[in-house]
Amino acid sequence: MIKFGVIGCGYWGPNLIRNFSRFDECFVKTVADLNEIKLKNIKKFYPHIEITRSADDIFQDVEIEGVIIASPVSLHYEFARLALLNNKHVLVEKPMTSSYVHAQELVELSRKKNKLLMVDHTFLYTGAVKKIKEIVSCGQIGEIQYFDSIRINLGLFQSDINVIWDLAPHDIAILLHIVNEEPYSVIATGISHTDNTIENIAYITLQYKSNKIAHLTSSWTSPVKIRKILIGGTNKMIVYDDIEPTEKVKVYDTGYTVVSDEEKHKILVDYRAGDVYSPKIDQTEALYGMADDFLNAIINGAEPVSNMECGLKVVKILEAAEKSIKNKGKEVVLNGDN
Amino acid sequence: MIKFGVIGCGYWGPNLIRNFSRFDECFVKTVADLNEIKLKNIKKFYPHIEITRSADDIFQDVEIEGVIIASPVSLHYEFARLALLNNKHVLVEKPMTSSYVHAQELVELSRKKNKLLMVDHTFLYTGAVKKIKEIVSCGQIGEIQYFDSIRINLGLFQSDINVIWDLAPHDIAILLHIVNEEPYSVIATGISHTDNTIENIAYITLQYKSNKIAHLTSSWTSPVKIRKILIGGTNKMIVYDDIEPTEKVKVYDTGYTVVSDEEKHKILVDYRAGDVYSPKIDQTEALYGMADDFLNAIINGAEPVSNMECGLKVVKILEAAEKSIKNKGKEVVLNGDN
Amino acid sequence: MIKFGVIGCGYWGPNLIRNFSRFDECFVKTVADLNEIKLKNIKKFYPHIEITRSADDIFQDVEIEGVIIASPVSLHYEFARLALLNNKHVLVEKPMTSSYVHAQELVELSRKKNKLLMVDHTFLYTGAVKKIKEIVSCGQIGEIQYFDSIRINLGLFQSDINVIWDLAPHDIAILLHIVNEEPYSVIATGISHTDNTIENIAYITLQYKSNKIAHLTSSWTSPVKIRKILIGGTNKMIVYDDIEPTEKVKVYDTGYTVVSDEEKHKILVDYRAGDVYSPKIDQTEALYGMADDFLNAIINGAEPVSNMECGLKVVKILEAAEKSIKNKGKEVVLNGDN
Amino acid sequence: MIKFGVIGCGYWGPNLIRNFSRFDECFVKTVADLNEIKLKNIKKFYPHIEITRSADDIFQDVEIEGVIIASPVSLHYEFARLALLNNKHVLVEKPMTSSYVHAQELVELSRKKNKLLMVDHTFLYTGAVKKIKEIVSCGQIGEIQYFDSIRINLGLFQSDINVIWDLAPHDIAILLHIVNEEPYSVIATGISHTDNTIENIAYITLQYKSNKIAHLTSSWTSPVKIRKILIGGTNKMIVYDDIEPTEKVKVYDTGYTVVSDEEKHKILVDYRAGDVYSPKIDQTEALYGMADDFLNAIINGAEPVSNMECGLKVVKILEAAEKSIKNKGKEVVLNGDN
Repeated sequence: MIKFGVIGCGYWGPNLIRNFSRFDECFVKTVADLNEIKLKNIKKFYPHIEITRSADDIFQDVEIEGVIIASPVSLHYEFARLALLNNKHVLVEKPMTSSYVHAQELVELSRKKNKLLMVDHTFLYTGAVKKIKEIVSCGQIGEIQYFDSIRINLGLFQSDINVIWDLAPHDIAILLHIVNEEPYSVIATGISHTDNTIENIAYITLQYKSNKIAHLTSSWTSPVKIRKILIGGTNKMIVYDDIEPTEKVKVYDTGYTVVSDEEKHKILVDYRAGDVYSPKIDQTEALYGMADDFLNAIINGAEPVSNMECGLKVVKILEAAEKSIKNKGKEVVLNGDN
Repeated sequence: MIKFGVIGCGYWGPNLIRNFSRFDECFVKTVADLNEIKLKNIKKFYPHIEITRSADDIFQDVEIEGVIIASPVSLHYEFARLALLNNKHVLVEKPMTSSYVHAQELVELSRKKNKLLMVDHTFLYTGAVKKIKEIVSCGQIGEIQYFDSIRINLGLFQSDINVIWDLAPHDIAILLHIVNEEPYSVIATGISHTDNTIENIAYITLQYKSNKIAHLTSSWTSPVKIRKILIGGTNKMIVYDDIEPTEKVKVYDTGYTVVSDEEKHKILVDYRAGDVYSPKIDQTEALYGMADDFLNAIINGAEPVSNMECGLKVVKILEAAEKSIKNKGKEVVLNGDN
Repeated sequence: MIKFGVIGCGYWGPNLIRNFSRFDECFVKTVADLNEIKLKNIKKFYPHIEITRSADDIFQDVEIEGVIIASPVSLHYEFARLALLNNKHVLVEKPMTSSYVHAQELVELSRKKNKLLMVDHTFLYTGAVKKIKEIVSCGQIGEIQYFDSIRINLGLFQSDINVIWDLAPHDIAILLHIVNEEPYSVIATGISHTDNTIENIAYITLQYKSNKIAHLTSSWTSPVKIRKILIGGTNKMIVYDDIEPTEKVKVYDTGYTVVSDEEKHKILVDYRAGDVYSPKIDQTEALYGMADDFLNAIINGAEPVSNMECGLKVVKILEAAEKSIKNKGKEVVLNGDN
Repeated sequence: MIKFGVIGCGYWGPNLIRNFSRFDECFVKTVADLNEIKLKNIKKFYPHIEITRSADDIFQDVEIEGVIIASPVSLHYEFARLALLNNKHVLVEKPMTSSYVHAQELVELSRKKNKLLMVDHTFLYTGAVKKIKEIVSCGQIGEIQYFDSIRINLGLFQSDINVIWDLAPHDIAILLHIVNEEPYSVIATGISHTDNTIENIAYITLQYKSNKIAHLTSSWTSPVKIRKILIGGTNKMIVYDDIEPTEKVKVYDTGYTVVSDEEKHKILVDYRAGDVYSPKIDQTEALYGMADDFLNAIINGAEPVSNMECGLKVVKILEAAEKSIKNKGKEVVLNGDN
């Protein structure tokens, strides 16, 4: 029976506890948080779980094999480092850390300690993203030409990170999962309406060596909630609307053929708009699938879908995007050192 | 009775002819196009209209007071120039020209000849944009903080202009009409999937001296048609969805207050999500309103809503955006020489 | 060259004239209406068409082979009768007449005179209904179990007919076209909010000898426009939403299997919710297809899709529904005398 | 501290337990169910709750003051009767019973025993229905003219009750809550696709002495989920769409004025379509509000919103509707004996 410690029981922590409670192979032994009220609420629903204000109680507990970190982003690095140093497997909320150097250090430490380091990029475990991955992998949409994601709503302003560190990790993880090529450079713009440092709206363009483009829109200041990703292929196109209650993924049998008109020295484009198909989506809670993947990696040594290499790349792109924003859209090249 | 000549009767020309035919004060005397089939179709529905393959027949006709140009964009400048030189009022399709230098020249020529030069930015005459202008002008949404427009669909690739010259004129005209400040600089990215010169997807960020931002998404390669503009103010926010059959404009009583927490050196943001209000929209055909504005300007000397200064600024921003795309997102400053 | 006379150029008449003007094989020679302003508007756009205030001018014109009737419903019978008596083919707006006896008389007269009598049930010519017909005919949805249509909006109250005579002809024509069985009886309820005779809201249930049901909702007093038809089959189900700009028809791979649990004397139902498929729809204007069908029937003697037998059955059901409403929902049996 | 016993922990029971666990004034002491697996699941999440396979353990427990019944409908009467006879307050799932006679008996028993009898018509506690009640009560929509509710989805066929006993209690409870007049008679039709006794689709018309009408559509066999209520008033109209994530209630400033045209002996109707307004809705979980109302009634003797008189009327209308269906739409008069 694998015992877990959970650090942080604010918004996401209780969801993690609830899902890890569903397995027979593990249970949550201890929860740490600085906030007494949050600890008390946990105790009310899970009287058997130990609560503590000190994360050290988790690190020092030799019975605990894995640590689940749901603290503010700025503390991810320190908690994950201590957990690994104490020979525990680590599951950390997205993004892995708030700097690429820290993320690299954790990845190295994980390898050295031979302990698992996994980032909870929950969206990779949604029925929708699994279905899109399946459709793209089987080749039916052709070569991907663009990926455009809009993730905006009226959201809580974070005080330690800007909107791209909060929202874009979802889109970037999905992008890296779906598109088999890493972006070459980043051009980003943004604005802060509270002061001049923490952006609440941002736009990120990712450029590729091949003829594709990705674009992300992140905002905490939209009156409406939009969660929409368009993926264009040479044969078909996909629209993934996460707000739709049932038909979240639609595959459009839509494409175009480019013909050169020799005589007129023109490009002619021939359109095709065909049927639309909305595949049935697995309704299992994504967080349960993520927890299952983490457990399976610990028990059977399987490679998790949301592995640390993916988590590392996400941080690299986020850092580059933030740098570009601070430099008024200057292109930041992602040199391939990972 | 004012007589008009129309140059170009492809997609938009017949709509112009139909609307100018609704007034008692004017009529379309002559239509010019190189395409015989298109001319024949016009003749079938309007047997009294003269048709010709030569635009010169219009320029030379002393009876004709105004020329309406609905030709490909690359020919706008030449036709408008000749019309003005022949002392005729000019209504030209958007964008005014395909270069800023040419647009400047036409504006000067219009002043010199004392003949009207107007650009058909039809959207300025829609019930939705008129209502938004009214709401913004009366101050109820507060200071505008962002403007985000998405205009994408599966569209005809143009062979002489890229997607921003085709679609973004709508958004830029609306932006200039609604927001009482001109952007300071442009940062844009894009991609061409047909060759490397004519972009079919583009993203434009407009930066301002004050604390606001505008962003435009233009694409000919989306499987779904989206025409959505979000306008965020300090007090309220507006969503304008042109695809909605009836409730196109929604005003959200949504905002946030920024509080500085002295003790914690943090920014606290307090949210407010309130009622939504969808005002009744004038259903008059926008093109009829535009035609009426042009006529009124000719007859009464009134300043049209879509005046040549607006048309000129649109071209300036489009040219800057294209330049930024070609320079991988390099910021292009719009110096205020107009 | 077939010459037509059109009686009535109010709301629908101009649409008919425009579409019949698109064919080389025919043209509209004369338009009759009592309203001078409407006639003048026709003359303005079609200077070659003769106008008259007397329908007789059409009936007496030996050059005119076909009469298109777009008058108020209460005049359909008289105009169609006179047209047939004068040996002209007749196309009449839906519903054919305002009483079943009159409709029967016209059908008999048409047979006796050997002249075409066709009702403009335009919806039968829409891409959506043609696609649904195709899907149902090929058997993929299985046996039809229910048909539920909602057709409501804020509509003009008619002064000579109630809401079912105005809106339900569309639904009944589609129903008869799609479902290969005639209803056995009608149960209907309704209400008039203006006085007690002309209903503005009505609900109609059609019962069948086989195990199926149809239900129609008609209203002139809904603040929102809904045009939605659900068709349930034993294997799949169809949703036809005419308000949707593109994906009007959706086929749900949805069904259920009924199992008898012998032991528990219970009915067990096993569900299946699968993929959704939205076929590409022909975008041709339905009215053009209808006009083409009428022309083809005249020229080649082909049986039109919207034949007079269908038009007759529609009137029969409408009359039964009205009778049921007046008798507080009493079942009215449709005896099979046609 | 009030102690509750819960009978039935299938689909809805756990939601009731979770919500009653949120109060300091009460707790769930015992849960009874015949299904061991369901009991085990409850025990897992709430280790302190006693579980039993016998409801009698609850009735006999003198510590337990209130019994919450979430069993199949056919058992509501027996369990509620026993609970009242054992001097316990009763909260029973909707509908109160499966027959009017039984419901009447429970109401009498409740009065005799002076113990609370309340039906969990949860929808009366939703933010949407509370807002609609508020809008209607303040008079701004005028006199209600119609109420039209569609509640359809692909649902579990119940084996003891037909679709109207399963779905229509929601609509009828909302109707009785909003409209200050009781219906006079019921006309209903329906069909069973599994055998001839348990209908899976039904249509109910409720007639009133005043000039209003109500209509309900209930179905377990729709491929799409629709939860839409239209309420028409003389001044304004309301659309309540429960599927909408945020803007569930919309108030349309829409109406019509009826004018008699003396000369033409016609009814003229003058339309007005104006602004649309979507009020902010309280987001509190409805079931929490219902639990709070029940608790408040026990502790303070307050009259609950969802009182037993309402629950009784719901059963009366359901029974009349079923009777009408079995008699092919024959009108069933609801004589006012309650």
